[in-house]
Amino acid sequence: MSTATYTVKGMTCGHCVSSVKEEVAEVAGVTSVEVDLSTGLLTVGSESPVQDAAVFAAVEEAGYEVAAR
Amino acid sequence: MSTATYTVKGMTCGHCVSSVKEEVAEVAGVTSVEVDLSTGLLTVGSESPVQDAAVFAAVEEAGYEVAAR
Repeated sequence: MSTATYTVKGMTCGHCVSSVKEEVAEVAGVTSVEVDLSTGLLTVGSESPVQDAAVFAAVEEAGYEVAAR
Repeated sequence: MSTATYTVKGMTCGHCVSSVKEEVAEVAGVTSVEVDLSTGLLTVGSESPVQDAAVFAAVEEAGYEVAAR
C-alpha cells in the first residue's frame, strides 16, 4: 500500500473537489482519493506507487494545478 | 417574452454556474438562463413571466441562494 500527498491550487467548492476526485480516481492503480477543500490537500492511495506525472495530468484534466508534491 | 434578473449568492466557480443554470433551466416556462459568476447576476428568460418562488427554489436546489430580485 502506497500513499502520496499533493497540494492542489484553484479548487473553490465541492464541485471542484468532485472533479479532481473523479479524474484522479481514473489513474491506473489508484485505489483511494481524498481531497480537503480548505487546504487543497490531495491524498492518493494505491497498491504500488503511482507516477506523479499521471496524478499531475489528472489534476490538470480536471482544470486545476498541483502546487506542491 | 419576459426577462427577470436575480442576484445569486455563493457561486465560486464555473461548476457552480453550471449547477444553477441546469436547475433554473428546468423551471416550467423558462426558455433561457444566463449567469455571470463575477456579479452573481442570473437572467431568466421566458415566454410569459415565471413565478419568482420557482426560480428561488431552483437556485436553492442547486445549493445557492437568491440574495436579491
